[in-house]
Amino acid sequence: MKPSALSALGRRTTLPPISWLMHAALSRPKLISLAAGFTDNATLPVEISRRLLNRVLRSPKTGRPALQYGITAGETNLRQLTARHLQKLDGVSVTSKSHSWERLMITGGSQQLLYMTMEALCDEGDIVLVEDPTYFVFLSILQSRGLRARGVGSLFARNRACHWRNNGCKKALERDGLDLKHLETVLQRLKKSGELRRVKALYLVSYFQNPTGVTTSFEKKCGILKLLRQFERAAGHPIYLIEDAAYRELPFVRGRADLPVSRAERQLGPTIAPSALMVPGAVDRVIYTGTYSKPYAPGARVGFGILPEPLFTTVQYIKGNHDFGTANLLQQLLASALETGLYDRHVTKIQKRYAQKAQVMKRALAEHFPSNVEIWEAGGGLYFWARLPRHIPTGVKSKVFQAALKNDVLYVPGEICYADDPSRRKPDHEMRLSFGSASEADIREGIKRLGKVLRKLL
Amino acid sequence: MKPSALSALGRRTTLPPISWLMHAALSRPKLISLAAGFTDNATLPVEISRRLLNRVLRSPKTGRPALQYGITAGETNLRQLTARHLQKLDGVSVTSKSHSWERLMITGGSQQLLYMTMEALCDEGDIVLVEDPTYFVFLSILQSRGLRARGVGSLFARNRACHWRNNGCKKALERDGLDLKHLETVLQRLKKSGELRRVKALYLVSYFQNPTGVTTSFEKKCGILKLLRQFERAAGHPIYLIEDAAYRELPFVRGRADLPVSRAERQLGPTIAPSALMVPGAVDRVIYTGTYSKPYAPGARVGFGILPEPLFTTVQYIKGNHDFGTANLLQQLLASALETGLYDRHVTKIQKRYAQKAQVMKRALAEHFPSNVEIWEAGGGLYFWARLPRHIPTGVKSKVFQAALKNDVLYVPGEICYADDPSRRKPDHEMRLSFGSASEADIREGIKRLGKVLRKLL
Repeated sequence: MKPSALSALGRRTTLPPISWLMHAALSRPKLISLAAGFTDNATLPVEISRRLLNRVLRSPKTGRPALQYGITAGETNLRQLTARHLQKLDGVSVTSKSHSWERLMITGGSQQLLYMTMEALCDEGDIVLVEDPTYFVFLSILQSRGLRARGVGSLFARNRACHWRNNGCKKALERDGLDLKHLETVLQRLKKSGELRRVKALYLVSYFQNPTGVTTSFEKKCGILKLLRQFERAAGHPIYLIEDAAYRELPFVRGRADLPVSRAERQLGPTIAPSALMVPGAVDRVIYTGTYSKPYAPGARVGFGILPEPLFTTVQYIKGNHDFGTANLLQQLLASALETGLYDRHVTKIQKRYAQKAQVMKRALAEHFPSNVEIWEAGGGLYFWARLPRHIPTGVKSKVFQAALKNDVLYVPGEICYADDPSRRKPDHEMRLSFGSASEADIREGIKRLGKVLRKLL
Repeated sequence: MKPSALSALGRRTTLPPISWLMHAALSRPKLISLAAGFTDNATLPVEISRRLLNRVLRSPKTGRPALQYGITAGETNLRQLTARHLQKLDGVSVTSKSHSWERLMITGGSQQLLYMTMEALCDEGDIVLVEDPTYFVFLSILQSRGLRARGVGSLFARNRACHWRNNGCKKALERDGLDLKHLETVLQRLKKSGELRRVKALYLVSYFQNPTGVTTSFEKKCGILKLLRQFERAAGHPIYLIEDAAYRELPFVRGRADLPVSRAERQLGPTIAPSALMVPGAVDRVIYTGTYSKPYAPGARVGFGILPEPLFTTVQYIKGNHDFGTANLLQQLLASALETGLYDRHVTKIQKRYAQKAQVMKRALAEHFPSNVEIWEAGGGLYFWARLPRHIPTGVKSKVFQAALKNDVLYVPGEICYADDPSRRKPDHEMRLSFGSASEADIREGIKRLGKVLRKLL
């Protein structure tokens, strides 16, 4: 090996697992990808963005601020509009301290905010609690920065709860996020081993979770914060709840009249849980991250977050070193979209679109997948989660994955969504199926191909 | 003090020095700021950007890729256009290995690339060599990440070379960047103290440097790389040269015919040095960073860089965790600007504009500043550098700064451009004067006010 000048972080930061998948996709042009977390191509707001950018750049007076440097924390106008937007989603007044625009920061996607939050909070060896399974790029951040993750089970993941095929099963209602009992067990165990002082935060993808599609109930959010507080004295410092609400604005709404509305939609659609910002004491403990990438456009990457002090100030300083502020042109585009109401109109449109695509995937799954595969149907977001019988692995080296690839269809193996946690075996028999970017025809064909593979191997 | 969960990095990352200045500016609305590194407001490409964005978003076919996720390293088209652009600036053919688009990455400004490069290369306590003085936000990165900086003098800073007032002085030609003898001394000293293995890179702002305006000659770049190589064996790993070429495309060209072209312009203008990518062996050792923020628009923040392996791959992985790719809409805007030739036309326009504003500042300085203040006039960029007699400090607590503030004019105190380096006293009697964002009238008035302050105190 040649001598290298790389840092420990540099040496730790390796090819992200998703890259293999991307690479596989590129090398097979006929491949149908149900793996990518890309958003729907057909509904991207091309015409709307053109109109809005013409509005922003209509005169030197309006256009120059969009092309000049700005403030590290973001444009005041967009920060205020975003705070108001969150207030509306939570149904609170503008005076809500928890939703204050002054602690709201605009970032290069919510990913950047997650990264900087980890920088501000965690030293090498520190522990972050995560859902089992969770968003795999967050796990990459932890891995790269030398942080440890500890998985906390979800009820649905621990009980053999029923899936949507088993109509009438009461247990389906338990799919409301984190298993609080398990969280307490994990915290107790860390306390006993003396590692509680290394625990800095719990990371929760709270709406239509990536990868399972599960939405965490408000009661659970209250329970989580209460538990974290209980262990703070032993930890010696605050333990934060990071609520990643990336998919919050993508609940399914009734699509075409000829499609039946499923039970899950009726249950979850109209009663989306309030955010953790509504939990008493949130102002000191909840880090809320959101994004306009999913509901508007990933190519106009604008994310945001609300942070408690002293984190807000610290992350702002860190952003000063990263880029001293997200591109103003993008910020003004989003501000303009919010001001004109075109943002809301667009979101309504894509909600219908994703509901429709989810229905297409659901029908294809019902038709083509073997009956011993459990399917978790979400009330929104971009993903279905499928669980094969325990003895059938789905990882990139598995027979299932290789056969799928040979048949030109790609999924995300469930195992890459699980943290490296020595305290439990990593489940390896699940898959994430995305209906975000594939066309309806490709969703049908992709699920058909995958079903054929599974029928052969199960 | 309340218990805090902040990391060591979080605790180290404090209010950047420039924030005091910003804050001062905000609290005094009549203040003329010669401190900000903002670009000229009047020439921001509002109309051009509108045209280009209409082109990008003219149809779903062209618009959708601009609004979708992309590749972490950047859009292939923009990477290739940028590589070709750099090849043209260096006058080489497209086959030049040192200018390969495959090792070129698109980033959120060059600042992001500098940050990620430091992450990839340096562990806490590692050493980066910097110019004395240098770009202060780079110093903030080092400070935040617990890295040590060691200052290397420039010839102009060490000899009492003459400034532009002393026509005919030969020594003025020595203002061509780093003092190689001093670099060797610093490296020798580090070798002796056993710290050479901690030295990872030398950071050089090579064109119209921020803050001094000095351009490093090609010979010097060759000399630097040669010296770094000599010490690599003792270091046990490569020592990289980071060439920050942020101001490269802002040389002065002849402005209005009624303004005389100065000696400095005649000398530096037409003979801009080739980049360090042209030095033999650069392909393995030179990290080149550039930006479209300064020559095009800071609000459409797109930067880029060419990195040697294994750094390119590592930084790409790190970017996967930061944001998995810079906003495509901005990338397509820049690609479109380059393809249509509108970029080149805009750059020609702003070069004239800055030359004109520099002339205005130069005349005002000649008229209003006391004769014992040395002025370093650049051949391009956004800054003049002024050196007061040694016993007159210019820091934020100094009489000069406070009197300037009282008279509603702001400059950047020179001392914040010097690294914390225990091996030498930090010079504190200089100032950076920017003609970037202020109007011509404000430049005149600002320098007049500052001159008055200095005449009173000197």
